[in-house]
Amino acid sequence: MAIIEGRTWLEQLSRKQCYDLLHGRDIGRIAFLIDGLPEIFPVTYAIDGTDIVFRTDPGTKLDHLREGAHVAFEVDAFDAASRHGESVVVKGRSFQVCDPPHLRRLEQLGLEPWAYGEKANWIAVRPQIVTGRRIRNA
Amino acid sequence: MAIIEGRTWLEQLSRKQCYDLLHGRDIGRIAFLIDGLPEIFPVTYAIDGTDIVFRTDPGTKLDHLREGAHVAFEVDAFDAASRHGESVVVKGRSFQVCDPPHLRRLEQLGLEPWAYGEKANWIAVRPQIVTGRRIRNA
Repeated sequence: MAIIEGRTWLEQLSRKQCYDLLHGRDIGRIAFLIDGLPEIFPVTYAIDGTDIVFRTDPGTKLDHLREGAHVAFEVDAFDAASRHGESVVVKGRSFQVCDPPHLRRLEQLGLEPWAYGEKANWIAVRPQIVTGRRIRNA
Repeated sequence: MAIIEGRTWLEQLSRKQCYDLLHGRDIGRIAFLIDGLPEIFPVTYAIDGTDIVFRTDPGTKLDHLREGAHVAFEVDAFDAASRHGESVVVKGRSFQVCDPPHLRRLEQLGLEPWAYGEKANWIAVRPQIVTGRRIRNA
């Protein structure tokens, strides 16, 4: 049975529906703080259990996400013609994966970033809250 | 002449290219802080001059964005088949538009949010930094 938010008429997605969308997309956007201000980056990601994982080179993302940063990660699928769509937001903490068995598991995911670069560093987002909403235009 | 970032081989978009993408899309994602933690929401937006504008009902977004919040707003267009794409990030401050002539101008933009609700309140993001990048998979 669908749960509808009374104020917005948005349908809340179940956790399974959220992960179906997360598994079905390639690109998400990760938001986090740098010097107290919001930043947002698109990333090519994969799913490892319930974690969101992606690869990165040394730089801004690695510097700020390697040690427990609070993040919000968003994935969506919208269709402009029908004005329908779904969006999932994962909130949690991020960390760099350094444990060799964990890294070997991630290397099996077949995640190939679109942008150039070795991107040998893996960042994982461990979810604390996963929410999803579906817009059904009346 | 394209400007290529040496580390990532991403092409930097010009300001005009950024606004071309912003004008060409319907949905963006706005990131901001609530109680010091990052939040991210998809929104149906329009462009007013150089401002990003969208409509909202009373609630979380209005409460936190009406009075000068720092925000990062992202729009992208990615093609999974070719692994090419573009992304634009606008950073700036948000405010609620209350000035009647300004509101009348926004009402002429024809912005119809996809989700249910009157959404009579307008939020504008006044850009301070506009950056865009193009991924060209080699």
